[in-house]
Amino acid sequence: MAEIDELRATVELLAAQVRELSDQVEIMQLVAQYGPAVDSGSGAAAAALWSEDGTFDAVPQRRMRGRDEIAGMVHGDGHQSLIRNGCGHVLTVPHIVVDGDHATGRSYALNIRWDPGADRFWLARVSANTWRWARTPRDWRITERVNASLDGTAEHREMLAP
Amino acid sequence: MAEIDELRATVELLAAQVRELSDQVEIMQLVAQYGPAVDSGSGAAAAALWSEDGTFDAVPQRRMRGRDEIAGMVHGDGHQSLIRNGCGHVLTVPHIVVDGDHATGRSYALNIRWDPGADRFWLARVSANTWRWARTPRDWRITERVNASLDGTAEHREMLAP
Amino acid sequence: MAEIDELRATVELLAAQVRELSDQVEIMQLVAQYGPAVDSGSGAAAAALWSEDGTFDAVPQRRMRGRDEIAGMVHGDGHQSLIRNGCGHVLTVPHIVVDGDHATGRSYALNIRWDPGADRFWLARVSANTWRWARTPRDWRITERVNASLDGTAEHREMLAP
Repeated sequence: MAEIDELRATVELLAAQVRELSDQVEIMQLVAQYGPAVDSGSGAAAAALWSEDGTFDAVPQRRMRGRDEIAGMVHGDGHQSLIRNGCGHVLTVPHIVVDGDHATGRSYALNIRWDPGADRFWLARVSANTWRWARTPRDWRITERVNASLDGTAEHREMLAP
Repeated sequence: MAEIDELRATVELLAAQVRELSDQVEIMQLVAQYGPAVDSGSGAAAAALWSEDGTFDAVPQRRMRGRDEIAGMVHGDGHQSLIRNGCGHVLTVPHIVVDGDHATGRSYALNIRWDPGADRFWLARVSANTWRWARTPRDWRITERVNASLDGTAEHREMLAP
Repeated sequence: MAEIDELRATVELLAAQVRELSDQVEIMQLVAQYGPAVDSGSGAAAAALWSEDGTFDAVPQRRMRGRDEIAGMVHGDGHQSLIRNGCGHVLTVPHIVVDGDHATGRSYALNIRWDPGADRFWLARVSANTWRWARTPRDWRITERVNASLDGTAEHREMLAP
């Protein structure tokens, strides 16, 4: 093989590795934006993390379909009351499996609330999360998120199985 | 230097940087699988995160040596009771130092449990974690993990020192 | 274009992507060192995460200016008492936006403390964090960190807005 062809093959291999790494880091950073968006009451920013018709199931309370319903949850009385009283939606870095232009993942979400009387926070929820993401022409977006409390319900903990 | 040799040198430098990044991201993703594996009761998946003879010390309760003992912990009565009652093993992204085919790290693990009577979760443990990982022909695996409660014990908090 | 020029252009594009990824991962790893440094009482290691004249505002208790004041906080009676009684400073992976040699970010910090009487930990604080980082000749350092409790104060939760 000519020297230049050999080098080109090396570069192509490297480019594939860089693309894999970019996918991982971009999805980590996509998920890292959810908490800050909802805890600052930024409904449009939260909704924009999803694809146009992405879904978000907060089991069993709420099934959201599409960006408008996700923004509506953030702007709704329930969520607004939560953040006015002091609240943090703390998500962990997911385990991510990329397959071409789609990816799936598993992680945790903590819902932590302020108790002014006790001068401390309390853990309202610790939830299993499953994710589906899709590569769009611009970047990765969430196409499906399911959030279900780890309260001993067998189906919820099984969401975390590989 | 000929143009092609110069470019080859650039590519080699780049390849080294990509390998460093891959190591970091792969180890982050290895650690991100621990919680989901044990909280879904997947003993074999949890054990497979370790090398064949890897160790896991949950100080002071349990010393596990090799994959069978790690899987045995997950399948044991104690852990099964934990997850049936509602539990989340929430780990943070470690600080990682790679040295060739070995790496070391430091992080936190939260053990959070459901309290159905109080309709909230409680923090059973917050632990210092130290890690050793090794590069295998296929991927990175855990060779040693130590988990010890940050309950004021001097030796436990000193595990986190750089 | 000559074959070699074409390949060089590909390599330059790849190098830019690798630099972006390195920035992200290096900043993630910089932040991952804060908790372990302070919880092990390593004042110099904690201070070294900042630039020489970096700032750290723990709203409203403490305004630190420069490395000496940050190390002084870690070595001070308040912090030493915290870690002797059992404490974990658990930080999440920030959302990071890099702009040349500067970057900004948003994340959470949990301050968790041991309660020996109750045989459990309690959540003293969940805080919004904003960050500024700068690229130095050697690596990324913190130039500004603000930490403010998510206790319902509007200005604190607005720190998390995109």
